Amino acid sequence: MSKGNTKGFTIWFTGLSGAGKTTLAHKVHEFLVARGIMNLEILDGDVVRTHLSKGLGFSKEDRDTNIRRIGWVCQLLTKHGVPNIAAAISPYKEIRNEVRQMVGNFVEVYVKCPLDTLVQRDVKGLYKKALAGEVKNFTGVSDPYEEPDNPELVIESNRETVEESAQRIIAKLEEMGFIAPKEHKYSKEEEEEIAKRLESLGYL
Amino acid sequence: MSKGNTKGFTIWFTGLSGAGKTTLAHKVHEFLVARGIMNLEILDGDVVRTHLSKGLGFSKEDRDTNIRRIGWVCQLLTKHGVPNIAAAISPYKEIRNEVRQMVGNFVEVYVKCPLDTLVQRDVKGLYKKALAGEVKNFTGVSDPYEEPDNPELVIESNRETVEESAQRIIAKLEEMGFIAPKEHKYSKEEEEEIAKRLESLGYL
Repeated sequence: MSKGNTKGFTIWFTGLSGAGKTTLAHKVHEFLVARGIMNLEILDGDVVRTHLSKGLGFSKEDRDTNIRRIGWVCQLLTKHGVPNIAAAISPYKEIRNEVRQMVGNFVEVYVKCPLDTLVQRDVKGLYKKALAGEVKNFTGVSDPYEEPDNPELVIESNRETVEESAQRIIAKLEEMGFIAPKEHKYSKEEEEEIAKRLESLGYL
Repeated sequence: MSKGNTKGFTIWFTGLSGAGKTTLAHKVHEFLVARGIMNLEILDGDVVRTHLSKGLGFSKEDRDTNIRRIGWVCQLLTKHGVPNIAAAISPYKEIRNEVRQMVGNFVEVYVKCPLDTLVQRDVKGLYKKALAGEVKNFTGVSDPYEEPDNPELVIESNRETVEESAQRIIAKLEEMGFIAPKEHKYSKEEEEEIAKRLESLGYL
């Protein structure tokens, strides 16, 4: 089995805070490793803010800079054949389209969830604060979110399981020719390598 | 010939403005392509400032953030088997060592040139301005440059040709096991691919 996939692509998750972008990114990662793709990189919005965007805030301008920067790194990785997943709210259509142009092999996935549901769940307690006016520029409450016009996929995270969503994304990657269809039989050695990798990532 | 080298590494050029970091980076790139390494990425300080570090200035803090950010991208590329070259003044020892730790396969190359020579050449006219006090925080004139204690290589760019320097870097990469020794005979097809690549990069 080759150490890495030679075809680079970017899966770009966009959607409101709490919609399930990060969880889904990790499930897709798990599924891709199980398909023998060992070299995927996840660029999670929150993590990337530490390394790439320290000092940037949540104004439109700062958000745009943050997204362009993540997009530039996605573009670099894709160009060099490294599949990658970005998970960032990325509320503005224009900048997402800019990133799409820059990257090329781009799979925009809109992780959609009704605001009501997000407010009810409110895992991090942020919606409550935003609705009380304690957090400014909160996307979906006090800051705009522009839905994609033509995303490659819409995931309704309140209606399907994470496994179902991840499976649909894998099918889309096959359809777009970014990964090979699953017909390959793995050797015992390959299956061991996959199991080892899944374990090291904490998925097994 | 494989599309890419599977071993990632970072060649980190440090040195004063005008010492020849960018020129040398491109010569090393040319030599590496000629060795069949097709997937190298150059992160040039000036270029990277547009994509990664817009808004950062030249205070110690901003310089440190800029270098850490470039280092983080080098680390990503190296991790995924993409050889890369960073060319940035990177005046502070501590931050360069931080990047070294983060990257792992790290080849620090100090591109050394006496200040007198740089002031005489003054290709961009910046030293004149710095000496006249018109440019603030100019490394080597009004801002410190800390020489590396134990770089993998010191290039005296006023005493050797660019070709000699690039050749020494290639030899160092072989010695460190990052590229295979040149004993491989290329097929006609491989040689054509190399020539095509060199031409597309403007080196032929």
